[in-house]
Formats: sequence, structure tokens, C-alpha cells
Amino acid sequence: MATDNASTADTAYPRPEVDVPALTEVLDGEYAEIRDLVRTNLVNHASVLEDAEELGVDAFRERVREVVVEMAATGQTGMGFPSEYGGGGDLGASIAAFETLAFGDLSVLVKVGVQFGLFGGAILQLGTERHHDAYLRDLVTGQLMGCFAMTESGHGSNVQALGTLARYDAAAQEFVITTPGDGARKDYIGNAARHAELAVVFAQLEVGGKSEGVHAFVVPIRSGGETAPGVRIEDDGRKMGLNGVDNGRIWFDGVRVPREALLNRFADVTAEGVYESAIENPDRRFFTMLGTLVQGRVSVGGAGINAAKVALAIAVKYAVRRRQFEAASEAASGTGSEEASRAEEQLLLDYGLHQRRLLPLVARTYALHFAQDVVRTQLHEVFSGAEDDPQARRRLESRAAGTKALGTWHATKVIQECREACGGAGYLTVNRFAALKSDSDIFTTFEGDNHVLLQLVAKGLLTRYAGEFEDLDQLGMVRHVTGIAVETVLEKTSAHKLLERVRDLLPGGDEGDQEAGLLDPEYQLAMLRYREEHMLAGVARRLKSGIDQKRDPGAVFSRVQDHVIAVARAHVERLVLEAFADKVRGLPESGNKAALGLLCDLFALSTIEADRAWFMEHGRLTVQRSKAISREVNRLCRKVRPLAADLVDAWGIPSEMLRAPDLVG
Amino acid sequence: MATDNASTADTAYPRPEVDVPALTEVLDGEYAEIRDLVRTNLVNHASVLEDAEELGVDAFRERVREVVVEMAATGQTGMGFPSEYGGGGDLGASIAAFETLAFGDLSVLVKVGVQFGLFGGAILQLGTERHHDAYLRDLVTGQLMGCFAMTESGHGSNVQALGTLARYDAAAQEFVITTPGDGARKDYIGNAARHAELAVVFAQLEVGGKSEGVHAFVVPIRSGGETAPGVRIEDDGRKMGLNGVDNGRIWFDGVRVPREALLNRFADVTAEGVYESAIENPDRRFFTMLGTLVQGRVSVGGAGINAAKVALAIAVKYAVRRRQFEAASEAASGTGSEEASRAEEQLLLDYGLHQRRLLPLVARTYALHFAQDVVRTQLHEVFSGAEDDPQARRRLESRAAGTKALGTWHATKVIQECREACGGAGYLTVNRFAALKSDSDIFTTFEGDNHVLLQLVAKGLLTRYAGEFEDLDQLGMVRHVTGIAVETVLEKTSAHKLLERVRDLLPGGDEGDQEAGLLDPEYQLAMLRYREEHMLAGVARRLKSGIDQKRDPGAVFSRVQDHVIAVARAHVERLVLEAFADKVRGLPESGNKAALGLLCDLFALSTIEADRAWFMEHGRLTVQRSKAISREVNRLCRKVRPLAADLVDAWGIPSEMLRAPDLVG
Repeated sequence: MATDNASTADTAYPRPEVDVPALTEVLDGEYAEIRDLVRTNLVNHASVLEDAEELGVDAFRERVREVVVEMAATGQTGMGFPSEYGGGGDLGASIAAFETLAFGDLSVLVKVGVQFGLFGGAILQLGTERHHDAYLRDLVTGQLMGCFAMTESGHGSNVQALGTLARYDAAAQEFVITTPGDGARKDYIGNAARHAELAVVFAQLEVGGKSEGVHAFVVPIRSGGETAPGVRIEDDGRKMGLNGVDNGRIWFDGVRVPREALLNRFADVTAEGVYESAIENPDRRFFTMLGTLVQGRVSVGGAGINAAKVALAIAVKYAVRRRQFEAASEAASGTGSEEASRAEEQLLLDYGLHQRRLLPLVARTYALHFAQDVVRTQLHEVFSGAEDDPQARRRLESRAAGTKALGTWHATKVIQECREACGGAGYLTVNRFAALKSDSDIFTTFEGDNHVLLQLVAKGLLTRYAGEFEDLDQLGMVRHVTGIAVETVLEKTSAHKLLERVRDLLPGGDEGDQEAGLLDPEYQLAMLRYREEHMLAGVARRLKSGIDQKRDPGAVFSRVQDHVIAVARAHVERLVLEAFADKVRGLPESGNKAALGLLCDLFALSTIEADRAWFMEHGRLTVQRSKAISREVNRLCRKVRPLAADLVDAWGIPSEMLRAPDLVG
Repeated sequence: MATDNASTADTAYPRPEVDVPALTEVLDGEYAEIRDLVRTNLVNHASVLEDAEELGVDAFRERVREVVVEMAATGQTGMGFPSEYGGGGDLGASIAAFETLAFGDLSVLVKVGVQFGLFGGAILQLGTERHHDAYLRDLVTGQLMGCFAMTESGHGSNVQALGTLARYDAAAQEFVITTPGDGARKDYIGNAARHAELAVVFAQLEVGGKSEGVHAFVVPIRSGGETAPGVRIEDDGRKMGLNGVDNGRIWFDGVRVPREALLNRFADVTAEGVYESAIENPDRRFFTMLGTLVQGRVSVGGAGINAAKVALAIAVKYAVRRRQFEAASEAASGTGSEEASRAEEQLLLDYGLHQRRLLPLVARTYALHFAQDVVRTQLHEVFSGAEDDPQARRRLESRAAGTKALGTWHATKVIQECREACGGAGYLTVNRFAALKSDSDIFTTFEGDNHVLLQLVAKGLLTRYAGEFEDLDQLGMVRHVTGIAVETVLEKTSAHKLLERVRDLLPGGDEGDQEAGLLDPEYQLAMLRYREEHMLAGVARRLKSGIDQKRDPGAVFSRVQDHVIAVARAHVERLVLEAFADKVRGLPESGNKAALGLLCDLFALSTIEADRAWFMEHGRLTVQRSKAISREVNRLCRKVRPLAADLVDAWGIPSEMLRAPDLVG
């Protein structure tokens, strides 16, 4: 029905035609081939979705292992390993494959992540040739399963504080691995409860009585199904989801491994017991080691975004098919006649509220997709050596942390909203939401708790920020940062001219012009840049002022923590919008470009709208303009409405992965 | 650690002492006895929490049935039925029992709701003596199980449009029940797949070829485990949660039931085939019938609020026990020394962000608890006849719908936030979140989808609003409503003087006074009243103006729908705040009163803060005052922080229901 005839702006607008296959090409990008391989593999193993419901925990774990090994045989899971060990030698393709795998059962996804990303990645990135020769070939096929024993019960995301000890015994030329107490037991370790034969164990290295910080060791934990001597393993038991992955706890009681078990790319211990590392600063060494594992975060972020796509595809398809109520009878009183009501029931997606619930989420999913492209590309360039310098690494790590946090929170939110938007039918296991919801829930926590990750992002921003003043003496810098004002930020930023534009649109302007420029990408970006810079200055000022007042640093941080999270989020959202806008700008003129342009506007304006209180509080939105943005979001929703089904089809999710026979028809 | 020494406002504040047992008395209120019986029953059947994980679907369904029947034998579940049939004759107590049951396994809760609330409630409220005599005694003991067959696959929340037919055959003096197609199959019907022998079936009554609208019939569907002739039942299969409840689909193929099977309290068919009802208007008849079932909504809302308490109790107890990171090292750079970091790790709840995540939710849970007290009392008064007039019924129905929507959305949000706040440990099934999350998810949909319910609330408000102008002629009214302005609303409302206060605090006032009055309950209430009145006027104006422009009513409604939902939410939040503030006001001076006062302020201000964009857009908050509210919310969080553990203990959740051995210690 035509809901578009209410304002001239709407009727004047030519509806873009979406070319679905061409849009899929844009989305799949350079990795179309590996993504299609994964799609084929997903369809071939589609029965695992039912197995997840029907098999008991033990049987399902075995089934998932089988699927993983079978997928490995197609080359799908080994793309990130060097070709001399049977891999594909293309880290970007490896991430793309992982992202696509998230269309299917997420136990399979996480098992792949544990085996090839965490375990395999640690061997590859932290180990040297001797470890590669010994393990890579077998782990790439999935014949040799391993686990990644980092997290401890007592120190969730605080890896630097973990308690497991690895003491070097020079006489025996061995490391002795010990769990000093239950707080230091390894916990939630995927593959540990059943399938892993090896573990990459993170422990505090002690050489000659001196603590050298956290290092990784290869430790055999199981052989022929039997737990190794000195190792104790407990099953973590049933979890909310991902029950195809065998998570467990591990304790080490004086387990001895040879000196060569140290993954020695960044540090080594000589036979005589001398600790050696090319990186002198222990903090820097630690973060360098951890930094090599960044692909895990890039992978999980991308998986979250694609899990969200599955939920949205189902909810949108349902909403363009399901009729409910007769709209007018809700607004007025009921008509009383059953036949009349039924005849006039309206498609769900023609309701303004339903559009509001789903379409900004579709837009944000597209935005995150293109932001994920950027971080994946950065990862590939850093690790292939195409662009590998400390600055590129830091940029990558920050971006990976931020995209992971926003992508996984997005998944949680989208899946919940879509379940509710499908009503009672959404609650049946056969319709995917149950699995999506329970399996993806932990994404916000693993590979780094999202709040902790955003703190890392903020820390990087603050460090860079402080860096701009590093030639000032200490006192001068304090004064500078403390006294920083909006004007300073405006002058400092490279977006100076854009911010001028924002300022021009402030109160006092022509009331009739309140809607002018809302769809200008430069305006949208300037708004997000302004927010980020302003928040950053605010956090810096608060931290400095607390320290100047000699208050307890813990208390100072505690009070500024919500601002810290806010600035990181603002930063990442700005990056996401840039990625989306860049992508749209680069496309040739077409219906697809026009459609993506609408989505990009919808993403930008709904993002500003969501934080419009902040913009008003900081003088960047007048009351009238704030309301105009909400109106424009509604208008964009109506424009996206007729394209919605095509936009979710373009994601190329195999119909077998949607299941939901009653919902999507 | 003292995080309270940063501002004079904080240190000047005397920390209230919470008397936990006395606070539990306040919370349990007049229903302490039945609540304690439920607590005892929950502890006695605590093993069902593990059974939910360990048993297969079939075995778990049987186990849940057993538990329900055993609980019924203690009198717990029959409180709402007349004593002559073995009930307790106290509807309020029945709801209180149900609320408390939500501390435990939610399959047990929902099975109780289906059997005693929906099925039993329909027999009691829609039936007459012949039905009561025939069924009540056996259904109160749980020996006779039944189901409530209202929802159909094709018409989720649109009951008036359902398709099942009941045609009166005057010759045989029977009704013939038929499912005309798959859209009209009954779906998601609890107890249908296994245990129900009877169904209360909602169908379109047809007498002498004339449709009389939806009526309810008692239909035998199963006997001795065998499905009755003409009835087809299909299992809905595995669901996201609540797998102890046997939901199913039912089709009727010309099933004949005697004339007496019509639940005939509000309408009857004579033997000769004459339809008779004391309520002439078919719409009003339909809504009168449905209105008697309002207890289901009151029950689910209360259950949602109590499920949220379980999650919050675990997360708060964890947060005052778990140490993580050293705050300063996050803000600055890491210290490098593992020992140092470990020694200084800070309790989670001492982090500002963690306080922000959990404590406003604790406050809102208290607020909703007291709001639930009000709606439960209204229900009791209406149904006991103490205060039963059409106006009281309408007020109850609106309030029940609104509290259900806000209470169940609150549960979904709280459980998710608490799971994330407990990190990886929150993901293990043993720690309750898995079950809470998957079992409670459907609360937002069943007993009426929350968005549909809020539309009902809004409809009531609009009807009343229009009612105030009913002496104007049609055109006059249109003009009046269309032209309505803020000043009109101000004059019209009974809160006139309070709104004057709000106006006094608007821009132009003394900047130094920005924080004055924030903690004045009258100010807080006036803000919420203002928002509600203003939104209501806006919706009315938009609807009228759309209709004046002769636009398609469906399109008009579609566009105003988000405002409709917003006004309903604003209305219910105002009622919730009133309930909380009234409760606090009525308490004798004590530490508990002071503590609840803090929570009430925290609820009020965090509610205003969450919608501060709206208040700014509508001239009711200056930028400075908006920021002052955020500061005050932070301050209140710090004041509530030392009380948090006591505040969750006062809910009186048996420790067996928290499980979570690793989290709550």
C-alpha cells in the first residue's frame, strides 16, 4: 500500500531498483569465492542445525567435530596458514570464511575459531619454525586438536594478572607448569573438555627466580583420550548455548615440558637459563605477543555482524508476509466484523513502528559490514607485511577491539528485537532465534569483554591525544589539557572546516532551514567527529583534574569510566560511518548505490538521533533540528521499506540457514 | 573503598542502615504468608532447576507436571478459586503466589499459569455454576488438566479476528467446532501437546447463520492419553525455553459438544437456537469477556519483575565479591607487575560503570515491584467486588497491560545486562542466566504482545482524552483537539500547580540553581506528568489532522504509531513512579525509608535522564539541568552502592534459587 503519499519529499523521490546479485557482489567483495565455498559447505552440513536441538551434549560435540574436520578438508578453515603447511596463505580470506560460517550453526563456528584461530593462530604467530614444523600440518587438517588456555577463573579479561606459573628448571632444561590455586585454573577453554591433545598455555614465566611476565607454552594435555599426568581437566558442563563446543577447566600440577615448548618468537630462555628478548620493555613485550592474536577479535566481530544478518533476514521476510490487525481499527474502535478485520489486515512492515524497529538495524548492519571490510583489510595488510609498522598495528588493534564490541552488541540487540518482531513463532526452536540468541550471547564477553575492549580503544585515543602535546613540559601539558576548550578542539582537529559547517547550522539560523543539509554526508560525519573530539577532550580534562586534586586514581577512573566508554563508542561509530560513506561514494551510479545511500543516511541519522540528547547538551543540535532528524529518520524508513526484502536477500544467506518454514514461507 | 569523598554533597550524606528483614516485610506486604509457603515449596523442589538441564524434553515435562501437582496439594496454586471448590478465595494472594514462584524454574511457573490461571480462570470467570461444579474441584488439585486454546497461527494478538468456528446445530442441541484452515489452527497452546484433557476453545459463534463473535467453549480433547475423535494435535516441539511446558497445535474437524459446553456467563444460546446476552454491543461483550482474563497479564508482569530480581541478586552479589583490574592501571599504563595488579584489583561494583549498569536497574525493579502491588490490589478489589464498576475495570485493564509490558521488557533487559556483568561465568547453565534468559524471553509476547498492549493503553488514554470534550459538537471537538497547545494541556491537567514549578525551573533561571529541586518528588512527578500530557495532546493532534486531511486511516496510524507507544510508556512510567513515591511517603522514618528514598530518586532521575532528549526538545530541561540530572544519577549510584547487597537480599530469594555457586559464593 502506498504510505508514501504524505509529503512531497516522499512522492518526489524515485524509488531505487535494487539489483540483488550485483549487491551481493559488492558485499562479498574480493572474497566471493571463499564465501561461496562456505555457503556450499553450510548447505551440505545443514542437518547440524537440527542436530543441535536433537542430540545430547556428548553426541552433538562429536557431530560438530566431524563437521569441522569435513569442512577443513575443503580448505575452508585453513586459509590463514602458510601454503607449505597445507594452508591457503591468505589471512583476509580466512576471516571472510569465518564471517560467512556465522550464517550457520555457531558451535561449528566457535569450534573452528578455537582450533584454527586461537590454537592454530597462537602456534603460528607466537611460535617459530620448530613449532610450525611440528604442529601446523596436522592442525590445519583438524587431525590434531588443540586448545588455547589463556583465561583463568579469577582473572577474566585481565590476562596480565593471570596466576599460572611456568618455572624454568635449568638442570632439566624444562619448564614446570603449576596452577597455584583455583583462581588460576584455566576456565571456559574450548576443546579442553574432550578433543584437545595440546594446549597453548599462558603462564607467568619465572627464570632464575625472576618473573618475566606472561608467555605461552605448548603443553600436551591428553593422548589417546587419556588426560596427561599432572593435568586435571573438568568439564564446564552445559552452557546457555554453543553446546557443541567442549569447554573445560584445566589445572596443572608440576607438569614438565621441554625448553622448546616455549613459543619463542618474541622471547626465549637459553639452555643455561638466561632469558632473552628483543623487546626490552616487559609491557611492550606482553602487548606485542597479545597483539598477534588480534585476528580473534576481528573474527568474532565479523561473526556477530553476520549472525545479526540471519536474524534480520528472517524478521524482514516475515514482516513482508505477515498481516496483522487493521490499522484504522486500532486507532479508532474495533469494527466488530471478523471478516472485515481479516480482509484489511496490514503487512507488518507497513506499520511505522515495525519499520522503526527493523530498518535502522538493517542500515546499521550494512554499516558494520563495510566497517568490518576495513578492519579485515587492515589485518590482512599488517600480517602479510604489506603495511606493518607499530602505528598500523596499534590502529588495527584499536579498530579490531572497537568493531568487535559494536558488532557483537549489535548482534545481541538485533537477535532479541527480531525474535520479538516474530512473536510467538520466533520462540520455537525450529525458527533459528533460539539458537542464535543463546549461541551468540557470549560473543559480547569472549575475545575480551566489550567494556574492557572499549576501554582499550579509549586508552589509545587518550595516548594519541596526549602525544600531540608531548613537547610541552609536564606542567604545561597539564594546564593545556585541563584548560582545553571547544575552540581548541575545533582548531586542533583536521576536520576544522567541516566543523565550521556544523556551527553554521546552530541556533539562530533560519527556522525554515531546519532540515537543510541533514542528508549531506559531510554534515553527518562532522557531527560524529565533533562528538568524538569533544568527548575526548572532556575525558582528558576530567582525568587530569582528578589527578591534579591528588584524588585516588582508582576513584578518578571509576567516575570517568562512563565517559571513557562513551568516547570509545563515539570513535568507533565515526569509523563505521566513514567506512560506509566511503564505500557508497566509490560505487558507480546505480540503483544499488542509491539504495545504499539511503541506508547510509539512515544509519548516520539514526545514530545521531540516538545520541541527540548529547548533541543538544553540547550545542550541536537545536531543538528544532533534533526533531527534524527524527522526522527524517521516519522518512528514510519509509523509503527503505520497499527495498527491505531485496536488501536482506543480498546478504546471500542460504535458505537452509534461515529454516523458519512458517516465518519466511 | 571510599569512593564517596569526592564532593561535599556525598560526604555530608549519612549512609542509611538497611534492616533487611524489615524491608522484606515491606516488600512481601499483606501476602507474606503465601509468599513464604511458595519459598518453602521452591526449596523443596529445587532439584527441578537441575532437571531442566539434564532431563530430555519428555521426562522434564512429566517432572514439571509432578511438581505442579505437588505444589497444588499445599494450597499454593488454588488461592484464586472459591473455597467451596477447594480454593483459597483470595485472588490477590493467588497473584502474589505466582509472582513468588517466578524465583524458581519458569516452566513450573508457566505450567501453573496455564492450568490455574488461563484454563482455571476461564472456567471460573466465563463459566457458570454448571461448569464450576463439573470442573473446578478437580482442576484445583491439578488432577484435571486443561488448556486455553485462544491463539491461532494466523492471528497472534488479534483475538477478535480468529478463525475457528462454532456453529450451533439446533436439531442436535450441539455446537460443531471446526478449524477452517491452517491459519486458524490453535498454536503455542500450553498443556495441549501432552497433559490437557479439556480445552477452553475460543471460536466464532454462529447461530442460525449469524455470526455472534468470539465465545469460549469447553471441549474434551484427550482422554486416557488418547486424542479425542475429530481433534488433531501436533507438538510445537522444542522451544527456546520453557521446555517443561508441552505446547501444541490443535485442529478441530467438526467436533461436537453439547449446548452446555458454552461458557455462558455473558451470553447463551437457548435450546431452540436463540442467542441471548445481557450485553447488547458485540464489541463491548467481547471486551467484557476478555476483561475477565486480565489476571493473566497481572500475573505475567509480576513474574517478569521477580525473574529480574533473581538475575540482579546474582549480578550484585558477584559484583561485591569479584575483583578485577586495578583501576588506575587502566587509566594510565599497566604496572607490569603481576603481584601489584592482583593486590590492587578493585571490586566490580566500585567501578562507576558497573554501578551505572546495575544500580538503576535495582531501582527500577523496586519501582516496578510497588507498581505491581497497586495493580494486584486493583485486581483483587475488582474481582472480589469491593470496587467493581466499569471505570475501575477499565483502569485495571489499562494498568495491567502497561505493567505487563514494562515489567517483562525490564526482565529481558535486566537478565541480559546481568549475564554480561557476570562475564563468562554467567554463560554456564549452572548459574541460572541461561534458563532465566531463554525461559523468560517469551514473556514480552505472551498474554498479549507488549507493543499491542501499549497500544491498548494509549487507546484508553485517547478515549478518555476525547471524553473531556464530549459536550462540544463534532467540528468543535476536532478544532479543539487540533488546535491544542501546551498551555491548554497545562490548564486542563490537575497537576497544574506542579507544572508551574517545572516552568519555574526553565532556562533563564539562575545557573547556580541548576541542581535545585532535582530530588523533590513533586518535581520528578511533575516532569513525568508533563511528558505524558504533552505526548497525549500530540498524538491526538496528529490523528485528528491526518483524518481532517482525509488521509488513509491506516497510513495515519502507521505514522503516529511510535508516538502512540511513547505516550503509553510515559503514562505507565508515571504510574510506576507514583506507586513508588506513595509507598516511600507512607513508611515510618527509618533507614529503610531513607534507602527506598534513594532508590526512588534514582528511578525517577534515571527515567528522566533516559528521555532527556525529549524533555529538552519540549523545553522542559535546559542543557545545564540535563547535565545536572546525569551528575545526580551518578551521585545516587554511589550512595546506593554500599546498600546494594542488602537491597537484593531483601527480596528474599531462597539461595537455592540463585544457584551460581561460583558467583555468589
